Amino acid sequence: MNLTKYIESHRDAHLNELLEFLRIPSVSTKSEHKPDIERAAKWVAEKLRGAGMDTVEIVPTKMHPLVYGESLEAPGKPTVLFYGHYDVQPPEPLDLWTSPAFEPTVRNGNLYARGTADDKGQVHIHLKALESLRQAEGKLPINVKVMIEGEEEVGSESLWGFVTENKQRLKADALVVSDTSMLGRGVPSITYGLRGLNYYQIGVTGPAQDLHSGVFGGAVPNPITILCELFAKLHDKNFRVNIPGFYDDVATLSRAERKALNSLPWKEKEFRKTVGAPELCGEKGYSIVERVWCRPTLELNGIWGGYTGEGSKTVIPSKAYAKFSTRLVPNQDPQKIARLVEKHIRSLLPKTVKMKFEVLSTGKPWVAPFTHPIFKTAQQALEQGFGKKAVFIREGGSIPFVTQMYDTFKVPCVLMGFGLPDENAHAPDEHIALENYFGGIKSIAHFYEGLAKLEAAA
Amino acid sequence: MNLTKYIESHRDAHLNELLEFLRIPSVSTKSEHKPDIERAAKWVAEKLRGAGMDTVEIVPTKMHPLVYGESLEAPGKPTVLFYGHYDVQPPEPLDLWTSPAFEPTVRNGNLYARGTADDKGQVHIHLKALESLRQAEGKLPINVKVMIEGEEEVGSESLWGFVTENKQRLKADALVVSDTSMLGRGVPSITYGLRGLNYYQIGVTGPAQDLHSGVFGGAVPNPITILCELFAKLHDKNFRVNIPGFYDDVATLSRAERKALNSLPWKEKEFRKTVGAPELCGEKGYSIVERVWCRPTLELNGIWGGYTGEGSKTVIPSKAYAKFSTRLVPNQDPQKIARLVEKHIRSLLPKTVKMKFEVLSTGKPWVAPFTHPIFKTAQQALEQGFGKKAVFIREGGSIPFVTQMYDTFKVPCVLMGFGLPDENAHAPDEHIALENYFGGIKSIAHFYEGLAKLEAAA
Repeated sequence: MNLTKYIESHRDAHLNELLEFLRIPSVSTKSEHKPDIERAAKWVAEKLRGAGMDTVEIVPTKMHPLVYGESLEAPGKPTVLFYGHYDVQPPEPLDLWTSPAFEPTVRNGNLYARGTADDKGQVHIHLKALESLRQAEGKLPINVKVMIEGEEEVGSESLWGFVTENKQRLKADALVVSDTSMLGRGVPSITYGLRGLNYYQIGVTGPAQDLHSGVFGGAVPNPITILCELFAKLHDKNFRVNIPGFYDDVATLSRAERKALNSLPWKEKEFRKTVGAPELCGEKGYSIVERVWCRPTLELNGIWGGYTGEGSKTVIPSKAYAKFSTRLVPNQDPQKIARLVEKHIRSLLPKTVKMKFEVLSTGKPWVAPFTHPIFKTAQQALEQGFGKKAVFIREGGSIPFVTQMYDTFKVPCVLMGFGLPDENAHAPDEHIALENYFGGIKSIAHFYEGLAKLEAAA
Repeated sequence: MNLTKYIESHRDAHLNELLEFLRIPSVSTKSEHKPDIERAAKWVAEKLRGAGMDTVEIVPTKMHPLVYGESLEAPGKPTVLFYGHYDVQPPEPLDLWTSPAFEPTVRNGNLYARGTADDKGQVHIHLKALESLRQAEGKLPINVKVMIEGEEEVGSESLWGFVTENKQRLKADALVVSDTSMLGRGVPSITYGLRGLNYYQIGVTGPAQDLHSGVFGGAVPNPITILCELFAKLHDKNFRVNIPGFYDDVATLSRAERKALNSLPWKEKEFRKTVGAPELCGEKGYSIVERVWCRPTLELNGIWGGYTGEGSKTVIPSKAYAKFSTRLVPNQDPQKIARLVEKHIRSLLPKTVKMKFEVLSTGKPWVAPFTHPIFKTAQQALEQGFGKKAVFIREGGSIPFVTQMYDTFKVPCVLMGFGLPDENAHAPDEHIALENYFGGIKSIAHFYEGLAKLEAAA
């Protein structure tokens, strides 16, 4: 059967199988979901077998299992290593979901559920592209290695151990990842740059226990106030991060790249609509696209302390906490930045409180040239899948693994993403446009088919 | 039977009955506890009847019922109006209680449970003092009106309506309240000053929904950061509240009062031990006692926004919230302060966010002279109950009702408290010293007995 025909005729079957995948609440950050994580790993392994991989393994790790599969039936043809993740962000706040996070629902041509865009939906695109190629053509036209991990949303701690232990086995001519977004609806995109990410948590303790704000208020340190005063000092009025040395290693953007990025068919109006805030803000001297793709940030991701229930409680809490993160760009070093952040925060804290400072994860930024012929193949495949010319973009999100792979294997990394920036990847009502899911399967199948025409490097 | 003998021989019975009262989780701020509130009101009414009140009513209000009882069997003798509350603060955080908040437990001479000190334990002291007088002497030596409300911890909204509708009926020669603390262990105290309290909640909205901090970070307003930057501006480096006009009406303390307050047998070492913070802090130019009793404050009581669960989530939240309060001193006007606070906060907020500002409650401060002979009677009664001379103190907490009653009825307000400052009134492991509970019953019985010797005002 013809490849395109096979894909077209299996739309319903593919979609129904995706719903099954999305129903597994594989939240990696919460220990209560450990059994769901195991179930998701098994599910992925089973589908890899179904797509005809010769070898499929569920690799246990210290945290969550990694699923590895390979098909090496095309001697002399290129080998790609596909990477994705089956774990998802927590669904909270639950009350803001229109339909429940783990009960996938189609509305207006979009499929809603946690993991649709990030990254189960995109992983499934590859599983179904491989299955379609195998079914339509009898065998895969290239060699494929597939590595799907379960810790991406919590820092991919086990992944690198597996990679370094299996360096020879994982060798490939290119790394392929689908965990990014398209620039906009109808604009297929290849991402050549990502920001790095360090994630931190701090806890500030003032009084040894919660105190009555009437009896003690006025004479004791309030850890919430101190936390606020601390974070107020971490940005200047031009929205620059106010930590000594933070920008020291930031690479200057070339005039040519700035021009290219600012000329993309990116729609500020749509961005503003998605954000929905009264006004935007950001670092002085940079366009919005530059701010989110090419400039480092420090963002508070969560804060809590004291009484947060209904009504009032006159308490001075003992403790207050914050989660925050720094997005990093070339050539910032995550370890160095973590040291600078902790050092500066410690220097700002008054003696009235104690602090626990934790670095939950670190990750390097990645930007790479897109001159290798594989990028041309990818661009053509996307045009076959979407009927539109693909563009080259950067993205503000982080896939630390891409940097590590790029640094280690020195092969091109092709990031073909099928999400959209307004698909609420880490928020309630996460979704994927069905046209991009189906277009993705077509594009990836054609991409793997096209790669067979390229020469293998080895 | 002799009064003292009666009280001594009923220690176990009194204590067991108190345990029953404390087991009712009468948390007024949470709607889920509405049935418990009703149960607590009925319990109080029943005990008032048991103490021999002629009339006992459970008065329905818009929120939580008020219990009223009276005994007018002593014509020509003074009439006291006793006020207390049967509602309690929420017990959270639950995991910090050594024994559960609503399972009263005795340890080291202290009774632990939510409401022991604030205010069920102290209300029970009066119920048992009245019962003891009635049982030992056949009838009450004075006229007593008792008003126990269920909304004190949420701003006493219904109370004042009841008072103004029953002004004639509530007339008395003095108001008696037991909802304050002793200066320290073994120092019976009469409180002549309280701070006022305004309680606020604000919610700041940036983006219309939670956003991925990678995809959007650097170009959109973060409501947590903005909340932090806002609260960082509300204090100056000398710990003064940085809101224009906030101190305008604050009455200057007389040299004599400052001297008296700073000469009290107050133990800074014990205060520091109770607080347990690495260091204390507070408004420059004032002693600790002055800071907590006589100076206004602005305190954050709760903050929340973004991801607060286990691990990491890279989100820029749509909303962030804070609860905070201002403690007020003479002659600050709560309404005026609420306006100043809102106006200043609105002026500080950037245009990138929207804000909802709520005043959850307001309450005036109270300070009054203690020259009326009733204070001498109270002092002597406390000496009979505790074997130690009672002192006159101020307190940092708030009982807005006392101000209202003082302003309306122009009668002396006698605040005889049996709590201790380290009894965690609004915190986990709230407790009351059993010696103060039993000493309180004796003192109040002797106080009411002693009042019979004073002339009625009418």
